[in-house]
Amino acid sequence: MTERDTTAQVERAQSAALRLANVDAADRDAALGAIADAIRDNSEAILAANREDVEEAEAMLADGEYTQALVDRLKLDEAKLDDIAGMVESVAEQDDPLGETLEARELDEELELYKLSVPIGVVATIFESRPDALVQIAALALKSGNAVILKGGSEASESNRVLYETILSATEDLPDGWATLIEAHEEVDRLLELDDMVDLVMPRGSSEFVSYIQDNTQIPVLGHTEGICHVYVDEAADLDMAEDIALDAKVQYPAVCNAVETLLVDESVAADFLPAVVERYRDAGVVLRGDDATREHVDIDPATDDDWDTEYGDLELSIKVVSDLYDAVDHINAHGSKHTESIVTGDAERAETFMTGVDAASVFHNASTRFADGYRYGLGAEVGISTGKIHARGPVGLEGLTTYKYYLEGDGQLVATYAGEDAVPFTHEALDADWNPGHRSRRD
Amino acid sequence: MTERDTTAQVERAQSAALRLANVDAADRDAALGAIADAIRDNSEAILAANREDVEEAEAMLADGEYTQALVDRLKLDEAKLDDIAGMVESVAEQDDPLGETLEARELDEELELYKLSVPIGVVATIFESRPDALVQIAALALKSGNAVILKGGSEASESNRVLYETILSATEDLPDGWATLIEAHEEVDRLLELDDMVDLVMPRGSSEFVSYIQDNTQIPVLGHTEGICHVYVDEAADLDMAEDIALDAKVQYPAVCNAVETLLVDESVAADFLPAVVERYRDAGVVLRGDDATREHVDIDPATDDDWDTEYGDLELSIKVVSDLYDAVDHINAHGSKHTESIVTGDAERAETFMTGVDAASVFHNASTRFADGYRYGLGAEVGISTGKIHARGPVGLEGLTTYKYYLEGDGQLVATYAGEDAVPFTHEALDADWNPGHRSRRD
Repeated sequence: MTERDTTAQVERAQSAALRLANVDAADRDAALGAIADAIRDNSEAILAANREDVEEAEAMLADGEYTQALVDRLKLDEAKLDDIAGMVESVAEQDDPLGETLEARELDEELELYKLSVPIGVVATIFESRPDALVQIAALALKSGNAVILKGGSEASESNRVLYETILSATEDLPDGWATLIEAHEEVDRLLELDDMVDLVMPRGSSEFVSYIQDNTQIPVLGHTEGICHVYVDEAADLDMAEDIALDAKVQYPAVCNAVETLLVDESVAADFLPAVVERYRDAGVVLRGDDATREHVDIDPATDDDWDTEYGDLELSIKVVSDLYDAVDHINAHGSKHTESIVTGDAERAETFMTGVDAASVFHNASTRFADGYRYGLGAEVGISTGKIHARGPVGLEGLTTYKYYLEGDGQLVATYAGEDAVPFTHEALDADWNPGHRSRRD
Repeated sequence: MTERDTTAQVERAQSAALRLANVDAADRDAALGAIADAIRDNSEAILAANREDVEEAEAMLADGEYTQALVDRLKLDEAKLDDIAGMVESVAEQDDPLGETLEARELDEELELYKLSVPIGVVATIFESRPDALVQIAALALKSGNAVILKGGSEASESNRVLYETILSATEDLPDGWATLIEAHEEVDRLLELDDMVDLVMPRGSSEFVSYIQDNTQIPVLGHTEGICHVYVDEAADLDMAEDIALDAKVQYPAVCNAVETLLVDESVAADFLPAVVERYRDAGVVLRGDDATREHVDIDPATDDDWDTEYGDLELSIKVVSDLYDAVDHINAHGSKHTESIVTGDAERAETFMTGVDAASVFHNASTRFADGYRYGLGAEVGISTGKIHARGPVGLEGLTTYKYYLEGDGQLVATYAGEDAVPFTHEALDADWNPGHRSRRD
């Protein structure tokens, strides 16, 4: 495949995006239903293709090129495929993110401004070894009216191709080019150069992988690299509550980005708190490392400076004693990844100081960091978690795949009327936001 | 100045940003008032510094290095300074963009999620030859609680330095480092590399200048390059209205980005419409170029392919006859700059097809493209106009300098309670959005 081919494919996606933006919600949802059905109907072919990928990966595993974790992520079975189809159906059931009136204002009589949600245009995903990522991003893109470019890893090439063909065959009524699979590995760098044509890229993979994408494109990236989250046990904490939260935040599911990596303990409660929580961590099999002040109270290994910047993603935890609330905030702002930070305290004012002082997408008071999640937040489908600050932050729902467009409905108004010495003033009155002019049919 | 110095300055801005985010609205507004006063009080020194810049620029003008337009933009006088101070006061009068509750949801009893607007962090501006840009961006950044990096052109260095010192001396109570002036020319490229530290850059200058910034940084850019806007006169247009709109959109102020550059005329009305509008354009001194079909009806110079992609920014206009509404939409999507597009038609359904079909930040029905402006839209202070689609689009108000943060107020909840076989369901009920936990004092 040549550079020209990639550009041509993305151009076709751009044209498709313009048409897809005007496909009714009902038709988009029907297409999602058809995709789910097609995945179930075509499970035999999909699983056969997946077996080829898995066999090849297992051979590489023997050579030491791939890890067992990669092979596990790659592997599909009937139950997983059914889950994937169910995920597509659940995306269809979400509220339509398009045509929502975000603002409505009368500028003058018969001159009405509406700010409506619309698709972004062309979104791309680049993902490693999880064939479900292809289906998930395609479904989210379709629901939000975006054309999508899909680039999977070579280790899943057979699975990806069959899944892609299954999706296309189920959506022949949609604008040609709404979904495009890019297969050649060298196409990634070409795709990342097309910042004039691709509006958003959503990488799915390891921290290193997402970092690589971020460092090598000017396309806005929706994603997150590492999650270094903290729980701070304040001097005014209910220590029983703090123990429970500290445990839940680490052991309930340690592999995910919203699990805690460093526990910060106020020095005034360290002697009371640390022995009990350390015993519970040990019972749960958590490997602990602490700073000197921590080790005065409990017998654990010493932490190094690297520990404060490490996402273990496993049953491992570092513990640090801080001198006060401000010391905790400073540590978090120096070492956190702006993901999720939690304070345990009975003092509302101290909670507010912590929550406004730490720079993170999610700040919690008396709750486990593990709540930072689109489903738990009630956002519906989760598009991703963003540790960036622009466009979308924290757990991102379907609105992360939309932008907006201003619709102005006039009656022949000229700017000259509102300028100069005899300028007519604007009224600038809020309008009923339930009605909108641009998407009447879509909202019926 | 070394690379290390720039990095150290931006690090200081990062620290300041964390503290500035917690400065009350009243204190931010008071600081803006103090800046306005200081500019008026210090006008003699500011104008003296400005005279040095202007004299040097006039010498370069003689050498042909600078243009007269640059010298005009550079020059300040008492009246302009008073306008600048008034602009700072009007920014202070805007509603506080921070601490707004964007969403509020109960996840379960005593577990409440609030999405609140917060500052982005560190914003930078890089601007050419307009000393007022320094003051304007500093005021907008302060109002929205962001630390700001200011980098002006060398031609305005004396003016910028005195304005910056005036601002700093008026805001000694604000966190040290909230505003930073960077002077060395070579610092621009260093600044543009600090994408891990600077959250947003707002260039102010020519299209070429903004393009250069966009092409040379991974920091998100809020700005616009060119504005190639169209007026489409539909077959169902009121032709008198169309004439007025076509004139207003070009001649009311031709130098700005929301002025029309190409007039598209449906072939069914070309014979009736073109002679009259061309006469009025000629009376207004507009230089016209048209395609062959246009020139069958009126005697004007031929347009070349380049005309469809040119922002004249002057009393010049290209005219094209299109075969129908869809032809107009296709032309706009191929040649427009996603800025502002207007259809004149008496047919609401055709208007909707146009408005949903063209890809632009603002789409108008029976109104002049010149309405695309933050003030006319009622947005209050205009931060800029964005032709990007991510984060902020079209005319951007102060909310373009904010992001959001999720606040979760709990009572010791654990995720384990809501997972597994006996999972407690979430309630996910909307909460009264008027109250918020994080910024009580700020909203009083």
